[in-house]
Amino acid sequence: MLKTPYLLFLGDVPDPLSAKVAQGIRDWRPEYALGQYRLPGCQADMNLPDLDIDTAVAQGARTLVIGAANRGGIISRSWISVLKEALTAGMDIASGLHNLLRDEPELVAAAEQYGGKLIDVRIPPVSYPIGDGQPRRGKRCLVVGTDCSIGKMYTSLALDIALQKRGAKSSFRATGQTGILITGEGVPLDAVIADFMAGSIEWLTPDNDDDHWDIIEGQGSLFHPSYSGVTLALIHGGQPDALILCHEPTRTHMRGLPNYQLPSLEQLRDTALPLAQVVNPECKVVGVSVNTSGQSIDEAERYLRDLEARLGLPCVDPYRQSADRLAEAVLSC
Amino acid sequence: MLKTPYLLFLGDVPDPLSAKVAQGIRDWRPEYALGQYRLPGCQADMNLPDLDIDTAVAQGARTLVIGAANRGGIISRSWISVLKEALTAGMDIASGLHNLLRDEPELVAAAEQYGGKLIDVRIPPVSYPIGDGQPRRGKRCLVVGTDCSIGKMYTSLALDIALQKRGAKSSFRATGQTGILITGEGVPLDAVIADFMAGSIEWLTPDNDDDHWDIIEGQGSLFHPSYSGVTLALIHGGQPDALILCHEPTRTHMRGLPNYQLPSLEQLRDTALPLAQVVNPECKVVGVSVNTSGQSIDEAERYLRDLEARLGLPCVDPYRQSADRLAEAVLSC
Repeated sequence: MLKTPYLLFLGDVPDPLSAKVAQGIRDWRPEYALGQYRLPGCQADMNLPDLDIDTAVAQGARTLVIGAANRGGIISRSWISVLKEALTAGMDIASGLHNLLRDEPELVAAAEQYGGKLIDVRIPPVSYPIGDGQPRRGKRCLVVGTDCSIGKMYTSLALDIALQKRGAKSSFRATGQTGILITGEGVPLDAVIADFMAGSIEWLTPDNDDDHWDIIEGQGSLFHPSYSGVTLALIHGGQPDALILCHEPTRTHMRGLPNYQLPSLEQLRDTALPLAQVVNPECKVVGVSVNTSGQSIDEAERYLRDLEARLGLPCVDPYRQSADRLAEAVLSC
Repeated sequence: MLKTPYLLFLGDVPDPLSAKVAQGIRDWRPEYALGQYRLPGCQADMNLPDLDIDTAVAQGARTLVIGAANRGGIISRSWISVLKEALTAGMDIASGLHNLLRDEPELVAAAEQYGGKLIDVRIPPVSYPIGDGQPRRGKRCLVVGTDCSIGKMYTSLALDIALQKRGAKSSFRATGQTGILITGEGVPLDAVIADFMAGSIEWLTPDNDDDHWDIIEGQGSLFHPSYSGVTLALIHGGQPDALILCHEPTRTHMRGLPNYQLPSLEQLRDTALPLAQVVNPECKVVGVSVNTSGQSIDEAERYLRDLEARLGLPCVDPYRQSADRLAEAVLSC
């Protein structure tokens, strides 16, 4: 478990999407987000106070959380000196990057010298089983997207809260580093060894009360060639009863892949649902979550209304509006 | 690289399919397969001489290859004493199991004492990139199956040989431990970290001559819930121009999953092809490879004839017949 509150380290990320770890913590655990630390050239801003290490420590910060994700998850050289400074000042460091803190000799030495901890939340904490595809008690909902970094975690967190507000039993099940940093547990699926991916999701969503919903955080996209295998393992390991589709209508190409167009929501539905029905013939698509942050409020409302008529499903932006209608759709499933 | 010839260790496997590593070596590199070593209860037989360690060494065996795969890839306690005996007699040990030789203290100690090597072919030899989905020069063929352990590697090896017999440029690209043990190189895909699966296959099948075919060994199945994510990473990382479907008509359920039925070849075609076309819109299904080992010759011929009429594609058993018609179908693609 991480010591709070946090100083969110944004590094020198080239765009706000690369800081989604920090943004998730700020939005879902604002009480933990004391401030942000940015390097020159940083193109992300959490609208938090920019604090240097000494000021943050003086204000009570206990952990420097690396809130930025580079492509490939590398810890760049320009970051190391700040991280060492944080350790020297007595903070822990938490990270979800592929490039582990514990593999950086300078950080290991500083952590030993000053007694700080290096916490790599990406490292799977247990040996996962191989999936066996057997039915489990309880209900499960999985969010699948037309692309990566499109709002799947937000949708899952908002849906979990909306279900609990209604008195329903539900658990957010984190499958990525941000979700794990927010909730303190989960499966860092993109760091799991291939053979154990589906089994890790079965492990994460075990037998439960018949009326309990696991809200499983989605990863990647069936249509994103870099990460599609991870997505299919989630679908087959999660055995969802309900799928929620997730989309961002202004995106011009798949994240990081200028040559690839996003699929339509119909394509996503018609691809994901039959694959889910391999493991759960009763699975249904129950709603659509749209990230409308790139649209005006008027545009967003028109888009959602048109989409709802087209697909015959509740279509909402859970961040701008609420996840209430998605929660109703899940509970009626 | 492994020292030859081998003594193939079959352990106490419960069925012949679990010894597919040994069977692959015997069939495709028979000159390496000096003999077999079986424990009481072993239900597999390579029709090779049963040799004890001393006899095998006296006949020239240099490496004990673990030719059996347990569920989960564990090195059982009953195996350890034989492996230690082989090291004591001066042999190397090679293994493709998840449970690494190098993680067994008794084996590490014996290897150090007697100078033998512990070779875990499952360990990825390089850091693979994240896939970028960019088109590459040259042609690629991928074998996809209705189930695991259904003949995909055999099909790929036979197709590679049939292409080369015709003077075509082709390379078998191993993606599993047996293929790697046979050819000495490849990607141990089921041991790759999830985020790098597709990238590892791009790395394995780089730019090549325009008329060169990579024949990519398939893994798992889109319909096998334990391993489907690995299969989709192969499809998206491999960017196949040609797909070959692989089937075993007498199998009553998915391997290891009594509750799961195999899909039809039509279902496999209609699921795999659109997913492949995400990365290569020109991809085609060019033929079907049927493992008819569970049928009489008459049954097999009738089955293949009926199937060919049903699907309108060349349908052959490359092991019992030949892969010539598959090679023609690939070259006309």
